[in-house]
Order: sequence, then C-alpha cells, then structure tokens
Amino acid sequence: MQYFLSDYMEGAHPLILERLMQTNMEKTPGYGTDHYCAEAREKIRQACGCPGASVHFLVGGTQTNATVITSVLRPYEGVMAAESGHINQHEAGAVEAGGHKVLGLPHRNGKLAAEDVDRYVTEFYAGPSWEHMVAPAMVYISHPTEYGTLYTLEELKALLAVCRKHQIPLFLDGARLGYGLAAHGTDVTLKDIAALCDIFYIGGTKVGALFGEAVVFTHPGLVKQFDTIVKQRGVLLAKGRLLGLQFDTLFTDDLYVRIARHAIDMADRIVSALREKGYRFLIEPETNQLFVIMENRRLEELSKTVGVEIWEKVDEDHTAVRIATSWATREEDVAVLIGQL
Amino acid sequence: MQYFLSDYMEGAHPLILERLMQTNMEKTPGYGTDHYCAEAREKIRQACGCPGASVHFLVGGTQTNATVITSVLRPYEGVMAAESGHINQHEAGAVEAGGHKVLGLPHRNGKLAAEDVDRYVTEFYAGPSWEHMVAPAMVYISHPTEYGTLYTLEELKALLAVCRKHQIPLFLDGARLGYGLAAHGTDVTLKDIAALCDIFYIGGTKVGALFGEAVVFTHPGLVKQFDTIVKQRGVLLAKGRLLGLQFDTLFTDDLYVRIARHAIDMADRIVSALREKGYRFLIEPETNQLFVIMENRRLEELSKTVGVEIWEKVDEDHTAVRIATSWATREEDVAVLIGQL
Amino acid sequence: MQYFLSDYMEGAHPLILERLMQTNMEKTPGYGTDHYCAEAREKIRQACGCPGASVHFLVGGTQTNATVITSVLRPYEGVMAAESGHINQHEAGAVEAGGHKVLGLPHRNGKLAAEDVDRYVTEFYAGPSWEHMVAPAMVYISHPTEYGTLYTLEELKALLAVCRKHQIPLFLDGARLGYGLAAHGTDVTLKDIAALCDIFYIGGTKVGALFGEAVVFTHPGLVKQFDTIVKQRGVLLAKGRLLGLQFDTLFTDDLYVRIARHAIDMADRIVSALREKGYRFLIEPETNQLFVIMENRRLEELSKTVGVEIWEKVDEDHTAVRIATSWATREEDVAVLIGQL
Amino acid sequence: MQYFLSDYMEGAHPLILERLMQTNMEKTPGYGTDHYCAEAREKIRQACGCPGASVHFLVGGTQTNATVITSVLRPYEGVMAAESGHINQHEAGAVEAGGHKVLGLPHRNGKLAAEDVDRYVTEFYAGPSWEHMVAPAMVYISHPTEYGTLYTLEELKALLAVCRKHQIPLFLDGARLGYGLAAHGTDVTLKDIAALCDIFYIGGTKVGALFGEAVVFTHPGLVKQFDTIVKQRGVLLAKGRLLGLQFDTLFTDDLYVRIARHAIDMADRIVSALREKGYRFLIEPETNQLFVIMENRRLEELSKTVGVEIWEKVDEDHTAVRIATSWATREEDVAVLIGQL
Repeated sequence: MQYFLSDYMEGAHPLILERLMQTNMEKTPGYGTDHYCAEAREKIRQACGCPGASVHFLVGGTQTNATVITSVLRPYEGVMAAESGHINQHEAGAVEAGGHKVLGLPHRNGKLAAEDVDRYVTEFYAGPSWEHMVAPAMVYISHPTEYGTLYTLEELKALLAVCRKHQIPLFLDGARLGYGLAAHGTDVTLKDIAALCDIFYIGGTKVGALFGEAVVFTHPGLVKQFDTIVKQRGVLLAKGRLLGLQFDTLFTDDLYVRIARHAIDMADRIVSALREKGYRFLIEPETNQLFVIMENRRLEELSKTVGVEIWEKVDEDHTAVRIATSWATREEDVAVLIGQL
Repeated sequence: MQYFLSDYMEGAHPLILERLMQTNMEKTPGYGTDHYCAEAREKIRQACGCPGASVHFLVGGTQTNATVITSVLRPYEGVMAAESGHINQHEAGAVEAGGHKVLGLPHRNGKLAAEDVDRYVTEFYAGPSWEHMVAPAMVYISHPTEYGTLYTLEELKALLAVCRKHQIPLFLDGARLGYGLAAHGTDVTLKDIAALCDIFYIGGTKVGALFGEAVVFTHPGLVKQFDTIVKQRGVLLAKGRLLGLQFDTLFTDDLYVRIARHAIDMADRIVSALREKGYRFLIEPETNQLFVIMENRRLEELSKTVGVEIWEKVDEDHTAVRIATSWATREEDVAVLIGQL
Repeated sequence: MQYFLSDYMEGAHPLILERLMQTNMEKTPGYGTDHYCAEAREKIRQACGCPGASVHFLVGGTQTNATVITSVLRPYEGVMAAESGHINQHEAGAVEAGGHKVLGLPHRNGKLAAEDVDRYVTEFYAGPSWEHMVAPAMVYISHPTEYGTLYTLEELKALLAVCRKHQIPLFLDGARLGYGLAAHGTDVTLKDIAALCDIFYIGGTKVGALFGEAVVFTHPGLVKQFDTIVKQRGVLLAKGRLLGLQFDTLFTDDLYVRIARHAIDMADRIVSALREKGYRFLIEPETNQLFVIMENRRLEELSKTVGVEIWEKVDEDHTAVRIATSWATREEDVAVLIGQL
Repeated sequence: MQYFLSDYMEGAHPLILERLMQTNMEKTPGYGTDHYCAEAREKIRQACGCPGASVHFLVGGTQTNATVITSVLRPYEGVMAAESGHINQHEAGAVEAGGHKVLGLPHRNGKLAAEDVDRYVTEFYAGPSWEHMVAPAMVYISHPTEYGTLYTLEELKALLAVCRKHQIPLFLDGARLGYGLAAHGTDVTLKDIAALCDIFYIGGTKVGALFGEAVVFTHPGLVKQFDTIVKQRGVLLAKGRLLGLQFDTLFTDDLYVRIARHAIDMADRIVSALREKGYRFLIEPETNQLFVIMENRRLEELSKTVGVEIWEKVDEDHTAVRIATSWATREEDVAVLIGQL
C-alpha cells in the first residue's frame, strides 16, 4: 500500500545516516557545544547571507515554536497568527501552556495579510482599555503554510514593514521551508527570509533529517540565554551533535533544497494527472502538499490501495484529502497513485 | 457631571459600610476562617437552595475566573467561551497565563448557544488528531453577558444538557448576577442557577459591595483544596471577614436583589426616554447596561455634561455608547441624563 | 479572651473608615486611575524622597511578591531568599506557580547576609554548567523579617553593594514595614529603603489598612506595563480608589509610622514584663513580634484566656510562641496579658 | 586524548544504527503510533513483569522529569527530592517553570531516606497553616543517583511504604538505570523497580541509544491523556518509531543490561587501579561513575592527556573529579587512563 499521508513517514536521507555511522564512536561534548554543531551553524549562516546570526538546534516543530515565542514575549504579550496556524490548532495549546495567548487573525489560504496585522494592532491601541488586554507583540507565519501555500516576496516585505512600524518581531515557522524554497513559482530565497525575519527556523524533520529544526535569530541581541530556556523546557538534546551532523549534511552541496525539489517534482506529476482527470483542488497547489476534492465513492475505492489524509468534508458527496510528497517519495509509488486516480 | 460609565464607580451600599464600622475593632482569625464568612456561606447556601454547596470568597472577577478555571482544568484542556466573553477579551490573558487556551465560539448577543457548544465538542472528537489539540473541557458563560443580555431558563437547561452529554462542567460568571436576577423579563432564579451550574459566582463588586465575589461549587468534590489554589494565586484575602461581612449583609433580607432592582428601575426610565426620543439600540436592553446608537454630533454634545462609555463605531456618523446604571444611581442624575438626551 | 495571634486581626484605623464613609458615594474611574490614587502616590513619593518613583497599589502581600518577582525575572532566572523567607515557606508556591525557583539561602535570625548572597552568585558563575541551572537574578528580603528582626543600614548597604556588583535588583518585602520604621533600635528610614532598594513595598494590611500594599519601583524603567501584569494576575482592584484612599490617609501627618509606634510601645511593655518574670526569647525582640519560650504547662494555662500563636517546639517541656501586637492593640489587653504571664 | 567526562559522548550501540539503516525508507505513521513502538512497549512490559503498564517514549531526561511531574501534580503540590537531585540542580528550573516547587530534602550520598520523607510529610501536616504551603505530594528519586550510588531493595521498599502511608506516588528517574541494574553489589532488579514504583523511566540516552527515555506508568490510571501533555510540552517526537526501534533493540536479548555491564567492568578496572595506587574516593564507587580525590598537581598533569570532569574542590591541594565509563568505553582507553594515573 502506498502512503501519501504526510512528509515525515520515512527516516532520513541516506547521506545523513551514513554520517551518523561514520562518526558514531567519536566522543564529543554534549548539548550542542561540539564541532559538528559549530560547522553546521557556520554553513547555515553562509547560506542565509547572515554572518552575525545566532543559530540553535532543536528537535521538533512544536517545541521550537513554543520555546521561541516564550523567549521573546513579555508576560502580557500575545502572538498574532492565522486562525489556521499550526500554533493555534495543532500544538495542544503549547503556547498557552507557556502563558501566552495566540491571537487568531483571519487567513487567506493559510496566509496572514500585512494589512490584517496592521489593522489589528492599530485598532488595539486605538481602542479603550487596551492595558487590560493581551498586547499583539509578535507575528507568527509559516512558509509554506498549513495549506501548502507560499508568501510572495512582496507579501513578506509588507509584513516586515508592518512589524517595523509597530516594533514587533516577525517569526517564520519553516517546518517545511525546503519545499517552499524549491517550489517553482516562488520568488523568495533563504537569503530573503533571513533578511526579512527576526527569527525563523529551517525544518529538518520534514525535509530529509531524522529530526531537527535550526532556529536562526538574525539579530542575536533579541533573546538572552536562549540555550538556557531551551534546557529549561527540556528540549536541549544531550547528544547535540546529532543535530549538528544532520544540518551540516543538509547544508553541504545544497542538499536541503535539492532533495526538496524532488518532492516538488513528484507533486507536479500528481497535479498534472489530477488536472488531466478533471479533479478540482481545495487550494491551488504550490508546494508538496496537494488538497484535492474527491467524490466520496472514489475516495473509498482509492483508500483501499493508497493512503491519503482526510482533510475536511466539502459537501455530502465530496471530501477534501491531502496528498503529500516528500524528499523520499519514490517515482514508482507516484505511478501507482496516478494509476489509481 | 453625571457619570454612567460603569457600575463600579461608587463605594458600597451604606448598610455594608455601617457593619464595617460596627465590627471594625473586633478580632477575628484570618483568611476566611472567621464566623462572618461562615454565616455568609450559610446564607448563600440557603438562598441557592443548595445546602451541600461549597462557598468561597474572592476579591475580584478576573481573579475568580482565572482561579476557578485553572483549578478545574487538566493541563491540555481549554475552556469554551463566547468570542466576546470577558475571559477572552478583557482579562489581559489571565486564563492563558494559567496555561489554558480560551476556545472562542461565536456568540449571539453575547450568549453562547448550546448547539454551538455541542457542535464544537462533537466535531472536535470526530476530527483527526484531536489528541494533539486543546480539549474543550469546560463551558464559561456570563449572566448577564458582556452585552447585558440574559439566558432564558430553557437556554441554560440546554447548555447543561450539552455539558452533561459531554461530561464537562458548566461555569457561570455572575459578576453582574444581581442585575440579571432583578431583571423584569427573566425566568431564571438564583436557585435555578445553583441547580444548573457546576460552578458559578455571585458578583459583589458591581452590586453593592466594595469588592468581592462569592464562588459556589454546587458539587463540592469537583476541586480539591481550592483555598490553597486561591492562596497560591495570591488572592486569599488576609482579613477575609471583610468579604464575609459584605456577603452576609447582601444576603440578609434579600438586599442583593433589592438594590439590583433599583438599577433596573433606573435603566427602565432611561430606556423609555430613549425610545420616546427615537434612539435605536445596538442590542435590545435587558438589564442595567444599555447599548445605544447615537449621532456623533449629539454624542459630542452629551459628553460635555454626562459621562458614557464609547463602545464602538457604528458608521461614519454614528457611535454605540454604553450607559450603565447601578444600585447607587440617583434619580436626580437619571433626570439630568434624560434632560440632556 | 485576648488575642495576640497576629497583627491583622482587626479592621482598619478609624481615620481610614471615616474617609471611606465620607467618599462612599463619589463616582471615580476604576483600576487605580482615580485622583485618590494619584494623591497617595505623590505622598508616598515624597515620603520616600524619590520623586521619580513609580508607585502601584495591590491588595495583599503574596500577590505583591509573586507579581513583582514574575514581572522582573526572565524565564530561567530565580530569586534568592532566606530559607525562612515568606515566599519560600508560606505562599503556597506562588513564585513557582509563576515559573520561578526560589533559591533558599541560609538565614541569620531571618536575615540574608550580603556575603552569603555574594558567595552564592560568585560560586554559581564559577561553577560548571551554570547555563543549565537557575540563575540567581534577584534578591528578596523582608524588613522586618519573619522573625521580627531588622536589617541595619550597614547590612542593607552591603546587600545593595553585592546586588550592584552582580547587576541584580534588590527587592524588599515591607509587609510589616511600619513596625520596622517605628522600632527603637533601627537606623533605617523609609528614605534609606527607597535609596537602597530597586523595588520595595509598604505594607498596609498589617499596619492600619483594611488591606493594601504600595509597591515602589525606585527606577521606573525596570518593568514595562506593570499594571497589565497586575491585571493579568487578577489583582488589579476594580475600585482602586479604596487603595488610594487608605494610603493617602496613612501618609497624611505621618499616620503610618505613628500608629506603628503604638504597636512597638505595647510590645515594649510586654517584653519588660516577660524579662522581669524571667522568660527567655527564641529571638531577641526588635519589633512588634515577640518569640517567647514558655513551659508547656504555663502555656496551657495561658491559652485559656489569651490567644498566642504556637511557633515551634523547643524541647520536651518548652514551646516557643509568637505574641504580636499591632496598631490596634489596646492597653487594657496588654495589662490582662501581663497579668496572666 | 581519552575522554571519561560523561556517559553520553558517543552515538548509539551499533545494533541500533544497523536497524535504523535497515528500516530507514519504511513508511510509518507518526508520534509513536507505529508498530516498532508497539513492539518495544510490549518487550518493556515483559521485562518489567508488568503486563498492564503504560509505556511512553520521550527524547531526554529533563523533559521526561518535567513532563511526568507536571502531569501528576495538582497546582499546589510539590515534589520531594534529594537536595542534590537532578531536578533540583541541573534542569534550569524545569519543574518550577511548570509551576511546581521542588522540596529539597537532605541526601545521604545522593539518596533520599524513607525516614526523612516520612518526617517531612508528617511534620508538614502536623504544622500550622499547611493549607498555605506547598503540599509534599510526590517522591522523586534517581537510581543510580547523581553520585552513582544505588538504593538497596530494602531502602526502596521503605520508600514505597512511606509513599503508601501518605498516599503519594513514587517516581524513579532511571536516566542511568542500566548501570544500576548491571552493578555487582545491587539486589534490585528491573522487576523490583516496576513492582515498587508508580512511575519510572528507563534511560536510553546514557545507555546505548542515540537518545530516548521509556516512561513506565505501572498503574496506568494515574494520568489521563499523558501523550497530549507530552505533545503540549513539544516533546512528542514526530518520527516516534526512532524511539520504538531503539528500545526494541535494547530490550532484545537483554542488550540493555549487557552493554551496561561492560561499563561496570571498565569502571572496575579503573577502581582497582586507583585503589592500588592509593587514591581515595569522595564517594565509594557503585556504578559507572567514579568520584576520585586527586592532588591538584597530579590532576593538572592528567588533564593533558585524559579528560575527566572537575566535580568539586576538596581542600587547597585536592580536587574531586568524576570519571565516567559507558557502554562504549574501549579497553584500550581504560589502559591509557590507568597508565596515566
């Protein structure tokens, strides 16, 4: 049975496993103070065109979002996010468990619009008794979004402008960043993101690593003793070099984007086949996640041989499903899927 | 200048001050262990028709909401509330600071509908990966609501039925409960509330007391060591008798509802005058808070002599304002206000 | 029966009640934005000799300690306190509930020694892996202490010097500050405290008020939006003027220290009688709290007519008890107590 | 240069890496719902002799301690631990960040004595105003302790008896459990631990795994929805099978204890050599961590070729150092170390 349920169903890219094998019996100090982490940090700084950045490695996405947000906000401050944002829906209240409100704003295909942020902050401070309310003090976006959509360079610049206007930091969740950078239509590069965001992270878990997210603070002064906060939250990996090794590998010879492009290519084939066969999309596909509308009868049939994720009910007879490719998707599996459509 | 800005602008009902004077030099043990608190608890239990209830006195509304909610919920649980609910808007993120998400549901004139709660909970558990989301585990309503509206007995029963169906407690914020009980149109009594809610509180701050809210747990087993949680949050009043004395006074000879009725009477006069003069209401008035739509030019004029609260912009030329009466509103002030309209 | 159990058994100084009566029906805006609060703040600034100070009114001691500490510390920082300190023992874990560790240091009759603080901080940063430990980032002391003892001016200066050396703020809990200022032996004035502490509070609950603590930030830039944090913790009193009125009264004509002196005088009489009768003290008395060692048989007899607090067992036949006087202690009650000794 | 700094300096046991390679391209569902986790859980249940246990996989020790403790305690409850315990010293305040106080009790070579726990709890509830204090509601021990020492079966039974007497759960941190089980002198087996503790975890990070700790709730009803709490804290690994695979390997053919025994053997050789050469120990060695007292001059010399961890200053001329062996320690490295002593 072929699975297209998500982009984190396999282990890691073979080059990563190979390096884990090669270096396995080497002794290194713990908690990210080893030379592999140092080298990976340097490569990431270069790839970002941001020599002064501070880079930290964490294990997963939810912990990265919650740790970054907690480390930046004051007690009475909240973080603005699309209503559909991962932190607002699928992290079991991790941000709130850290004491902060997620301020859900309307989304447009998963994206947050600069003007919506501007209006929210402006009206907040214009309104009565804002001192008794949660201050909108950070912007959280993801790129690609929950719906696989991408910000344009212009949209990101507009968000940054609004953030600068109101003096609040811009934080980009890049759990699937590779697929965003490798997408055909995008005009946003990693260097752009580093130039435009105060904090962002480069997702490894979904793009070739066993696990791992690289957080980049482009203006290092923003948070004091971030590693201690990471430790306090229990998410400082003892054998930190496992993270360093993985990101060092991913950022050697552009592996990160190259393997992401494969996922995009596989998605392209599926999209072409779907269009040919007359399927409609819930959201126009941009990256490796495809949200397709299917007749329930057909879906039932398909589910016997291909695993896809049920996304939402569209009407009595139709359901939207998510088909996700990844760096690990095999051409033969795509062929089987297309055959079944 | 006559103020109708809110219902907590004066001190306390004279009978309360009198008792504070009479008992001032008496020595009592602290933290609510005195005989005044014991007597007030007993009177509240009787008024509620709930002899087994556990009654606790706190100082203010925000602390009461946050303390009750934190004491009931498990870490991954959240509280459902109308999007417009006080805990979701005007408590500076107190619930989130305690680690819990407020799950904002649509409101109907400030009220939460049983069917909306039912749909939310049902869809939540029917949906994918709910174990990774904040569980809807408590219902918060206020009576009267932020908009001064009231639940009917039928609506409350429907909410309770949904809560029982999903095994979640129903919590009623009664910061302005007196005005709700004294309203003309209501079919809900204090005994009904005690019969239908797992937890509720009787607001003193806005209904005759200097400060104070009486929390009633109608099924005492729900929370263990509530007073220690109150102490931990720093809201256990050292001279707890001040709370006992006030509630003892308010629950002697039905003072609580009697003084609330005065506020309703004063509101009635203003409503009649407003209707006569052709004003429209943003929300049909039910208690002591009136949400009136005014021409901006007229509002500007009025604001020179009468204080009302700007609520929201209606259109370019009109603004909604809130006029609030209270137990302390004087007839002559109402006359002045009506004269100015 | 005469109670000497604690210093918060009565209501408020009559002058305070009188002003509450006089101003009861006046309408003022809420949450400390009224003119009484403004006047009280100004009087406190003057009494402190600190015209630039920022003054905030809270209701009780535990909430004040927890709110101040949370507002100042970063997530991984802790507060140093005497092992016997109130925040470490009697606040139900309020500081930890706010996410911070209390770092208990040895005490000397309830006092924290500058050299102990210096050693702790120095050894902390000299030790291995301090980045994985709770940083000592604030000093909490109380004056008088839990044992009724007082810091000398020299001791306070030494603490400040250590704080400055390590760049950490000094916070003084003055829940019983009046009794400290009124003590015979002290060389520490309110102006000294304002000059030496970054934050301190002037306790009202135990010194003449119904309730209330006045927090003074002597360098206002230290905490941003403190009132919002107060609101978030649910401890911003709606009718804030009640606090303003009380402190305005206490800081008019030096009432605060004058009434505290009465407590000291009453304590003096009891101390003289005790010495005369050969009683020993657990701790040499300095303020209004006396820790006396009694034979169990005698204590049992005494307890029939006079209430004192059991403090701790000294040996099989002796118990230490606390006798507390206050601004409200009557001469005739002292006479009865002395008669019974 | 030979390192004996800690027991987490290498990667994983080769059998683990091999299985990661073999299974790398397999697709499995995420978050611990895969069949490897299911199999590993079953093997652990069998090894524990506890067929009804609930087993959960986390990534590291600090996160496991904090998550377990938070999931069990009510807001006002604290956890008793040896003053020297890991949660009290080296986790950057993770327990406090979750809102709970660590109640530090005296330790005896790193161990907590049943009688000290009993005395603490008994005196707590016998004392005045315990409702205003942090309730001692859980016992945390580690086995081996921070000092490499081990509880005897009798000591564990005594702790359990005290816990049952006071109805509080017993939690055992087994970050280095393998080395405890493999120690020569111990009379404690894994089955004993499962029979005596309410919760414990089997450490993988320090005993052969890349990372991973297996939490065992021996009475599953204790915590509801533990996985959601794990997710909320951001520590539910997306590719959970990585944890399942590692523990499945470690619990096949008794690998876990076998590789731990190697560490003990290597430690034995070093201990013999040290004794022969007249070195004294700070603490009598029991497992894989040796705390040796060295002349400073000799230590300086040694540090040129062998890495050991500075533990503490003993006197002007002597320092205690920690030498740690692990499953990965090579005989030739031990020979070099012994040569240098």
